[in-house]
Amino acid sequence: MIVTITPNLALDVTYELPELRPGRTNRVHAVHARAGGKGVNVARVLRSLGHDVLVLGLVGGPTGEAVRADLDAAGLPHDLAPCAEETRRTVTVVAGDEATLLGEPGPVVTAEEWAALEARIPDADVLVVSGSLPPGVDAGAIARLAARDVPVIVDTSGEALRRAAPHAWVVKPNAEELAAVTGTDDPVAGARMLRARTAVVSLGADGLLAVTADEVYRVPSPQVVAGNPTGAGDAVVAALAAGAGSPWPELLGEAAALAAATVLAPVAGSYDSTAYEDLRTRP
Amino acid sequence: MIVTITPNLALDVTYELPELRPGRTNRVHAVHARAGGKGVNVARVLRSLGHDVLVLGLVGGPTGEAVRADLDAAGLPHDLAPCAEETRRTVTVVAGDEATLLGEPGPVVTAEEWAALEARIPDADVLVVSGSLPPGVDAGAIARLAARDVPVIVDTSGEALRRAAPHAWVVKPNAEELAAVTGTDDPVAGARMLRARTAVVSLGADGLLAVTADEVYRVPSPQVVAGNPTGAGDAVVAALAAGAGSPWPELLGEAAALAAATVLAPVAGSYDSTAYEDLRTRP
Repeated sequence: MIVTITPNLALDVTYELPELRPGRTNRVHAVHARAGGKGVNVARVLRSLGHDVLVLGLVGGPTGEAVRADLDAAGLPHDLAPCAEETRRTVTVVAGDEATLLGEPGPVVTAEEWAALEARIPDADVLVVSGSLPPGVDAGAIARLAARDVPVIVDTSGEALRRAAPHAWVVKPNAEELAAVTGTDDPVAGARMLRARTAVVSLGADGLLAVTADEVYRVPSPQVVAGNPTGAGDAVVAALAAGAGSPWPELLGEAAALAAATVLAPVAGSYDSTAYEDLRTRP
Repeated sequence: MIVTITPNLALDVTYELPELRPGRTNRVHAVHARAGGKGVNVARVLRSLGHDVLVLGLVGGPTGEAVRADLDAAGLPHDLAPCAEETRRTVTVVAGDEATLLGEPGPVVTAEEWAALEARIPDADVLVVSGSLPPGVDAGAIARLAARDVPVIVDTSGEALRRAAPHAWVVKPNAEELAAVTGTDDPVAGARMLRARTAVVSLGADGLLAVTADEVYRVPSPQVVAGNPTGAGDAVVAALAAGAGSPWPELLGEAAALAAATVLAPVAGSYDSTAYEDLRTRP
């Protein structure tokens, strides 16, 4: 079983309207909502790939209940710890080709609430920790999870990334996140500065890089027509979790194919399965 | 007791952030939420004025529960009928001096749900029906309420306004709403075209106009420094409900003073009580 922890779960709300007019009253034509946060997207992909998954996180208030209900509706097993403050929403306003995202701050989570989340972590083959920490949780919390005696994949940023890197099996920053925390634009140098056991760095159209203590592996991105890049990083994490134990060149190839197939799908957490089979079996 | 019916209740959410950047990711700094819809604002003002009020409307889903909880927290008595679909949210993005409103469509309300709302209307001194109809409710629904044997004040627009006007004690369109439904920019001619028993037309800075079957009364707006015009129309409705039975010149004077005092207050449903006392007692 692969357990995904989403420290800062969200209800992802999409507003569709023809045009966003700042400073005016805008009538929303359609509203969609679903459980979100990077760890949830990872779990959706893993489940589509046929893996047993469990979604962990904290939920509070009516918005938290909406997250729980959507996970149930999606058939994603979960074991959610309660928090007193309300789960955040992200509102994406889609108007024509333009998407404007409004991200609420997360609930302030107490040490006791966070401890109750940690206490729910079961034995797992792989542990994934994806996304930001909510306010109130100390930046070392993900490092402590990363030090567990199980392969742990961490996809986060800032101080939480810096502290988790020496402990996690893999940290997966994108190039900007790695540069922000290390001050260098060279991803290999950045990974070394983090003393990461392995850093898998997503370079967008330039592919994927894995930097271990003494090796560097790189795979190019498959040629893919334009699509929705949201969730491509989550697909990389899902592929790494699914293939844990495989040699790096093989793992990176799978991850690049799955990320490209995700770009072809309309929403984060889903992928184009035909394209995926095609991309992963290309010579 | 004054009963206010809000056919399309809402949770009014405010997002505060320094700048709204369309097409980008925007981090919201603060989130506020409270029960909204024009009839709720009217009830808030009436309660501040010392009147017994009862809030009626339909609520559904977790957002409906949040509306109910906020009415409880505000000490506003309510008797809300359930609907299957979720209550709408309005999101106002306040960035510096600019407010961008995103209004979700209301829940589709069935005939049975609407009938259950009507069945909850108790004996009242005045009945107020404020705001738009939710999808699914026929445009004659407010006209049927307006025909009840009690003074009914209707603040709505479009076909619902046109049909309610001959029945309600007062309809209170603003100049734009009246022009939209009558095709004329002359509010007196428009009110006559609607065959309104009385139309009280809010003309913004130009004051208030009451057009009865055979008389026209006008009061100017008090001189007021700039403020927040949201809720000024709801204050006019509250003053009419509070003063039902008084002569029109007196009623309009109270309404204009209360509306001006509302412009001086930061949020809809509240007013500056010192300014109100000053404005209403000016010679």
